[in-house]
Amino acid sequence: MVSLRTAAILTIGTELTTGLRQDTNTAEIARLLAEAGYVVHAALSLPDDRSIVASSIASLIEACDLVIVTGGLGPTHDDITREAASDALGRALLPDETIASQLTRVAARHTQTASREQMFRQAEVLEGATVLPAVAGTAPGQALALDGGHELVLLPGPPHEMRPLLIGFLSTRPHGPAPVRLRCTGVSESDAQHLVVPAIAAYAVELTLLAAPGDVEVVLFPRDADPVDLEAASSAAQAALGPACYSTDGSTLAETVIRLARDRGAVIATAESCTGGMVASALTDVPGSSAAFTGGVVAYDNAVKSGVLGVPPAVLALSGAVSDRTARAMAEGALALPGATIAVATTGIAGPDGGSDDRPVGLVWFALARTTGETLVAEHRLQGSRAAVRARATLIALDMLRCELLAR
Amino acid sequence: MVSLRTAAILTIGTELTTGLRQDTNTAEIARLLAEAGYVVHAALSLPDDRSIVASSIASLIEACDLVIVTGGLGPTHDDITREAASDALGRALLPDETIASQLTRVAARHTQTASREQMFRQAEVLEGATVLPAVAGTAPGQALALDGGHELVLLPGPPHEMRPLLIGFLSTRPHGPAPVRLRCTGVSESDAQHLVVPAIAAYAVELTLLAAPGDVEVVLFPRDADPVDLEAASSAAQAALGPACYSTDGSTLAETVIRLARDRGAVIATAESCTGGMVASALTDVPGSSAAFTGGVVAYDNAVKSGVLGVPPAVLALSGAVSDRTARAMAEGALALPGATIAVATTGIAGPDGGSDDRPVGLVWFALARTTGETLVAEHRLQGSRAAVRARATLIALDMLRCELLAR
Repeated sequence: MVSLRTAAILTIGTELTTGLRQDTNTAEIARLLAEAGYVVHAALSLPDDRSIVASSIASLIEACDLVIVTGGLGPTHDDITREAASDALGRALLPDETIASQLTRVAARHTQTASREQMFRQAEVLEGATVLPAVAGTAPGQALALDGGHELVLLPGPPHEMRPLLIGFLSTRPHGPAPVRLRCTGVSESDAQHLVVPAIAAYAVELTLLAAPGDVEVVLFPRDADPVDLEAASSAAQAALGPACYSTDGSTLAETVIRLARDRGAVIATAESCTGGMVASALTDVPGSSAAFTGGVVAYDNAVKSGVLGVPPAVLALSGAVSDRTARAMAEGALALPGATIAVATTGIAGPDGGSDDRPVGLVWFALARTTGETLVAEHRLQGSRAAVRARATLIALDMLRCELLAR
Repeated sequence: MVSLRTAAILTIGTELTTGLRQDTNTAEIARLLAEAGYVVHAALSLPDDRSIVASSIASLIEACDLVIVTGGLGPTHDDITREAASDALGRALLPDETIASQLTRVAARHTQTASREQMFRQAEVLEGATVLPAVAGTAPGQALALDGGHELVLLPGPPHEMRPLLIGFLSTRPHGPAPVRLRCTGVSESDAQHLVVPAIAAYAVELTLLAAPGDVEVVLFPRDADPVDLEAASSAAQAALGPACYSTDGSTLAETVIRLARDRGAVIATAESCTGGMVASALTDVPGSSAAFTGGVVAYDNAVKSGVLGVPPAVLALSGAVSDRTARAMAEGALALPGATIAVATTGIAGPDGGSDDRPVGLVWFALARTTGETLVAEHRLQGSRAAVRARATLIALDMLRCELLAR
């Protein structure tokens, strides 16, 4: 059994603290550390300021077993990570022969003396550190073991240079089990919590809930790196959540729908008004979706609903475009697309305008037509902005497909 | 002239420190703070751990003029930001009547007593804080002025809830001129730089370029908070970029297309294969798009291309689904949709499979049909993943619409 160790992530660069660049390293490093059994206590982005970085390294290395620093290892004047680490630990920077000779070959291609001199800064290694040789790019990393089992790892900032060095470093460390991720839809965050908490009470796991509109992720972490408890807790949580849980392997709802449709030999078509192509685009985002999706109609104008999908003009006139009868006729129109065996339709008022007392913004009608039975309709009243209503309606439409395919 | 103040950003959530969710708030907040004249000294992500968050708030509020905290304001057990701030500052949490009565209305829709009780945790406000009323969602923010001009602001984690509250808060603070942001498409980052650098050399502005696939943003910051130079530099940069620059007010490409179509009285239709509904969904994402968009067909299967869009089966058989002739026939088929006066079509190989030597992954044909002239076709060879090819193809299709509408 592997006990959990603590870690901190430090990403260096003024481009991060001014919002000019989105930091993607933190999320990737955090995932790799979680999989390796580390608990991350803090992730910091700091500007290219030697004293700020030095004092953060000094306090984090006291507090955590492992500190991963990325960025600031290049050759230019604002690359200050090596010097900051040297200040923080009171260790000298010494030139490494192997890196220096590699840099000599690269430097031969550079004409400017100044850049050549700057470049050799990259050969400087903290006294006692192990060099992590560069796999891509020119910047190597370094790992330093300190008293009390603490470790400091310096990695280059570009993700494709950082990634292989970190994976290589972590592969030399003992691993615990990865967290379990149960993705759910059609259940609120707090309802999911109420279902799961009693179900997993007996097991040594930690629970985290991630909520997005219409989508809740239940994440179980091993408390003591015990894979047996994690597996048992996962089964118990799944049973408690029931059909609301659509994936246990990280798959999206659209990926689950495409997989089910392929397994069942079903071919999907779509008819969309308020979601305007979002259902089709979610399905076609999945590689290999062409085997299970034939196509769809975005019927924004009523003339397209009747002209292309065959919704009777009398239905549109009497029941309105946002109604059970229109949704039904749209789905049945989509089912007539070549090859389709199952079709889903959306029609609603996404807002911000266009609502009335009768039919408020957020009202959406859904229909599911199929070659194997009668057409189903459902009404939902959704909250939030235009984007939120459309995103939520897309998930509901995908989930109607999932539930129907699951029942086959 | 406004002097620079210091700020720190704290994003709370175990999903961030375990890499389960990509933090996008930090970059957005950092950008808004930079525009408001703040220098960000540190950006931290912390787990849902009350004592860790409390000690970070306590030390950051000492060190910086403004501390922005996002996340952990929801109703569940792992939402600990309110309590951590209370611990850090030694301030009580008091129930706010206005928030509580709003929550009562929301709670009426929840059946479980426990969730109702939890929900009222969201009404607790730090003693002396100002409530920042929720614009979207149910979680309000709070702002607390402290001794020495220091300020602590707590905001909800979901970006669409956080954004309006932060913008509202910062609008009450003294501002220098905001940076100018010129959004461009169809031009590379280095080409944009070569066009803009000489054009703005005479002005006291700083230039930053932000590149995403198919989209480059040219950002001009005032060097001395001088609005005159900034305006002149903006005009010069716009002139240098020419029609590649599609917006100067932050509008997206789809918003620009819908605005132009409405201005010109044009009605758009779409015919999509590889983009699978993304063009239609980008257009219908814009409020009021129903005045300028009639509908579209997602023609994934060839049978839909011929059956619904009228692409001659002989064209599909002889030229293939990914060809100039198929793209042309698809666009002309979409132009036959009720009301359409302009139509765009995409057909390509998004990958990862399905490519050949002749037609590699990333090859996409586009066509633009219109009632006012002959159909245009264009071929692009796009790089990257399935998602990157689809996203880039969507922007190219939207830009064909924009250029055609601009010329009218």
